[in-house]
Amino acid sequence: MAQTIVDRRDVDFVLHEQLGVDTLSKHEKFADFNRKTIDLIVSEARNFAIKEMAPASKIGDEEGCRFENGKVSVPGAFQRVWELFAEGEWIAPTDDPESGGQGMPHTVALAARNYFHGANFPFMMIVLLSHGAGKLVEKFGTDLQKKLFLKKMYGGEWGGSMMLTEAEAGSDVGALTTTAVKNEDGTYSISGSKLFITAGDQDLTDNIIHPVLARIEGAPAGTAGISLFLAPKIWVNDDGSLGEPNDIVCTGIEEKMGIHGSPTCSMTLGGKGQCRGMLLGEANKGMRAMFVMMNEARLDVGMQGVACASASYLNALNYARERVQGRSLDAKSKDAPGVPIINHPDVRRMLMNMKVYSEAGRSLLFFIGHCEDLCRVSDDPEEQARLQQLIGVLIPIAKGYITDRAFDVCSLGVQVYGGYGYTREYPQEQYLRDLKITHIYEGSNGIQSMDLVGRKLAMDKGAGYDHMLDQIRKTVADAKAISALAPLADDLAATLEKLKATADSIRSLAMSEKMLDAYCHSYAFMNATGDAVMAWMLLWRAAVAAQKLEKGGKKKDKAFYEGQIAGARFFIRTLLPKAHGEMAAIQKADGVAMEIADEAFGGK
Amino acid sequence: MAQTIVDRRDVDFVLHEQLGVDTLSKHEKFADFNRKTIDLIVSEARNFAIKEMAPASKIGDEEGCRFENGKVSVPGAFQRVWELFAEGEWIAPTDDPESGGQGMPHTVALAARNYFHGANFPFMMIVLLSHGAGKLVEKFGTDLQKKLFLKKMYGGEWGGSMMLTEAEAGSDVGALTTTAVKNEDGTYSISGSKLFITAGDQDLTDNIIHPVLARIEGAPAGTAGISLFLAPKIWVNDDGSLGEPNDIVCTGIEEKMGIHGSPTCSMTLGGKGQCRGMLLGEANKGMRAMFVMMNEARLDVGMQGVACASASYLNALNYARERVQGRSLDAKSKDAPGVPIINHPDVRRMLMNMKVYSEAGRSLLFFIGHCEDLCRVSDDPEEQARLQQLIGVLIPIAKGYITDRAFDVCSLGVQVYGGYGYTREYPQEQYLRDLKITHIYEGSNGIQSMDLVGRKLAMDKGAGYDHMLDQIRKTVADAKAISALAPLADDLAATLEKLKATADSIRSLAMSEKMLDAYCHSYAFMNATGDAVMAWMLLWRAAVAAQKLEKGGKKKDKAFYEGQIAGARFFIRTLLPKAHGEMAAIQKADGVAMEIADEAFGGK
Repeated sequence: MAQTIVDRRDVDFVLHEQLGVDTLSKHEKFADFNRKTIDLIVSEARNFAIKEMAPASKIGDEEGCRFENGKVSVPGAFQRVWELFAEGEWIAPTDDPESGGQGMPHTVALAARNYFHGANFPFMMIVLLSHGAGKLVEKFGTDLQKKLFLKKMYGGEWGGSMMLTEAEAGSDVGALTTTAVKNEDGTYSISGSKLFITAGDQDLTDNIIHPVLARIEGAPAGTAGISLFLAPKIWVNDDGSLGEPNDIVCTGIEEKMGIHGSPTCSMTLGGKGQCRGMLLGEANKGMRAMFVMMNEARLDVGMQGVACASASYLNALNYARERVQGRSLDAKSKDAPGVPIINHPDVRRMLMNMKVYSEAGRSLLFFIGHCEDLCRVSDDPEEQARLQQLIGVLIPIAKGYITDRAFDVCSLGVQVYGGYGYTREYPQEQYLRDLKITHIYEGSNGIQSMDLVGRKLAMDKGAGYDHMLDQIRKTVADAKAISALAPLADDLAATLEKLKATADSIRSLAMSEKMLDAYCHSYAFMNATGDAVMAWMLLWRAAVAAQKLEKGGKKKDKAFYEGQIAGARFFIRTLLPKAHGEMAAIQKADGVAMEIADEAFGGK
Repeated sequence: MAQTIVDRRDVDFVLHEQLGVDTLSKHEKFADFNRKTIDLIVSEARNFAIKEMAPASKIGDEEGCRFENGKVSVPGAFQRVWELFAEGEWIAPTDDPESGGQGMPHTVALAARNYFHGANFPFMMIVLLSHGAGKLVEKFGTDLQKKLFLKKMYGGEWGGSMMLTEAEAGSDVGALTTTAVKNEDGTYSISGSKLFITAGDQDLTDNIIHPVLARIEGAPAGTAGISLFLAPKIWVNDDGSLGEPNDIVCTGIEEKMGIHGSPTCSMTLGGKGQCRGMLLGEANKGMRAMFVMMNEARLDVGMQGVACASASYLNALNYARERVQGRSLDAKSKDAPGVPIINHPDVRRMLMNMKVYSEAGRSLLFFIGHCEDLCRVSDDPEEQARLQQLIGVLIPIAKGYITDRAFDVCSLGVQVYGGYGYTREYPQEQYLRDLKITHIYEGSNGIQSMDLVGRKLAMDKGAGYDHMLDQIRKTVADAKAISALAPLADDLAATLEKLKATADSIRSLAMSEKMLDAYCHSYAFMNATGDAVMAWMLLWRAAVAAQKLEKGGKKKDKAFYEGQIAGARFFIRTLLPKAHGEMAAIQKADGVAMEIADEAFGGK
């Protein structure tokens, strides 16, 4: 049986019934993307993911990457997948067609990514890095740079990486020490060592274009002195011909807990010979360029979470429907026959958990993509600003909160299988191992929560957060008008009241002398906000489903829609109450974690 | 640097200051175990764990077990560890010296196990299975069986396993189909296939004595027809000489997410030739024998959780003290120097989380062991019954709740290291991978919660649960008398009120027609109870520490004691409030997880 990855019915529900994505096609920019085209794109992604990408994932996990003679080989099965992926023009789906992109709405691309990440996200890391490097060229490159690199990168002929992290500069990017010295010809000689460089080397493409963060001689300390360079593995002359290989050496790859198919490289630049780079964008403004990439990268990591959670859920669901074990708990007789484990309450508890986070996560991610699309077609600067503020608040939830919950979901995905889930015979344990990295890269989840409290909640007096609350209130009002949902709407309304007060209190604290106490609770605040956002998405889904149910329809749809109402009810009644306890604790904001002396942690 | 596993100061605190274990020595049974002896035993365990066991753990993870020519080899490094472990007489520490045990109090043995499990719990699985098999012989064997097997098994000359699970009989043991047919000589011919058999084969011992659950021809269906047999790998004649090898064949080993050093075997008995077994205990009473073993086995699994959590915590703590990254968040200048990450609020939040669960978990486990010891020295049947009821209620918490929290702690243990934590260079990711199995074996954590609600809360009208609440109230009263702790005591008292009401409500529901709804919330109830138990243990620790602080003392001790008060405050103020939300949801007991139609889960 081909592996199930994503529930297509649910993808269609979010795209068409919850968000109404095809209305974007009334804008010239997206005129080609009517419902039929969107459905074709999703179908193509689905087929490719199931047939080609998923089988390569297990192989990739087992085979891993190899490092021999200073060169990295990715799992052999990735070669064909890369070729077909590039042929299918999947590397730059949302980018400008003039630059080699497909000009697709983000929402649609995310639906495709839902399949791709769920099928093989270690492979997708190489894609994301290539695309991200290309995007930097598109955004900040000179005309010549664009001409030299862009179509080759967006087309998959050349790969890319992102040389940011160093041994002593991880979360603290400003501490990096790689240097750049200007040459007479206007290029720079770069030297330094980089660590944890995804796709720093690979054998999928003839050339690799490395964006490198480095400090030009004499530049200020910290992030204000960081510039961005392009350092190709093999130099590219101004006429497009290839020059000498650069001195960019992979010195090793990491053995990791998961994502074995994604090469994580230690790199040395200009260690022995010369590593030439060209400045990309303005000197000392490298960090600003990074920020431009951030939302998209974090959205992709969030989608890795949703995709793995949803794949793990569907596997567990199918298993629970087939695996016969134990009698019904309320069976009257000891001779009662065994039942599929989906009948057991605690298994249903696990499946409901998995369902609501998978589905609410999908809605959130697609919704953020949709906001990006609306921003792109809007000609109202105020509307655009409002959308960007909203996106800004939701990004740390989409990355931090979602990947944390996705890990919990994947842990349940092992649990439903029992002992079998712990074996490598089934895909469940790989999802769990792979997924742990999503808590760490693209800004650790702790940093996401600090971004939420320290930046997003502070900017414009928390206007973005207030926009979000307003949006949720709209959904609450819609649901309130539907009798079956009114009690759930009331519950969420009460949560929002408390959430607003909690946001105000932690914002004030973060701006006070006791700011450190606030950051002891920023992670809890991200959780509480995330819980409210999940409830929002699920209630929104339920409201759409209730309206559909009223109109009648196919029997199969009826079950699906009822499942939406059940999901909202499960989350709001069973899981959301814990957020109230969490908010109460945040409002008290006990500062013991700061007060405790370092020695009192013990150890040594 | 040798790996840190356990904070010795904390072990001593629980043994001597919280529990006063050496008072056991006033009983004849434990007369030898005065404080000095106890400390020597713990030191010996510590040295052995650090020097011999821990280094073999990483090797075992990388090398794994091999299956070649029908035989299993454990990692080569385990050979020496087994030899020394047996020489050190660590296999049967608490058992009767007449049977080859060391007669140690459980509390002291658990302190040693804290080190052993933290150093190398995959290795310990082989030990636990050998000891468990021996224990069955000790409890249920005839004099001859004891004479033939016991000292060899407790001495490590022969190993053991536990042949219980089959492909179609996992959580539902009663479904097993392995059969036993009586032979003329009184032995039985056993045939069937077993799955997930830990240490079903290994190359550490000359012989392996397999307890096998099987059904005698004509026995009743279900658990009432299961008998227990001893089937040695190589038959043992009545005079102790070795006979023919039995037809017990390992057909393969599982590739797993973790515990690679522990062989998980598929076994076939009597597939081609004869597998002879001798009845152990009475016919059809095999399940009852299993239940006798259960508490001890579950306690060990809980200790695996505590041990890995505490090792992961100490590693993270040391790392956070040394790793310099980022400036202090409240630094006034951009040129402020970098600080060790232990200074960052969100890192402190993670460390505090890890600290409280590691320490409270240790207290709980040692406390249960202490109750077992008190039971063994008591001559008051009422007191013994009360202790057994209390132990019965705490076991599902010690196994189910503790291993779940331990997994969260080990995930944070990776997180504190950032990208480094995801690599195999550091031990953090192995703890996380290894630990996942503890949620599954010895009764999955969902089953633990059903045991709590369906059995422990129901038995004697919940007397065991009430004993537990009474014990907690005593600690609350003690803490209430200490001014620094009085507000925390009040908070916990309020939680207990609500917990009692929640217990009453879920018990009534479980006995009503809506019993299935109750089991949809049994897992949440285990969590809420576990939270209260953690708060209890931490407040108890804080009360002891406050009394010590009042008396003055060494500076180093002062920090330790203050850390105890901080731990209680952190847990009760920051984490415990969520339990209130959880309890509110349990009391409402929404039945949506049962009501939702199977099709409405989606998929297919």
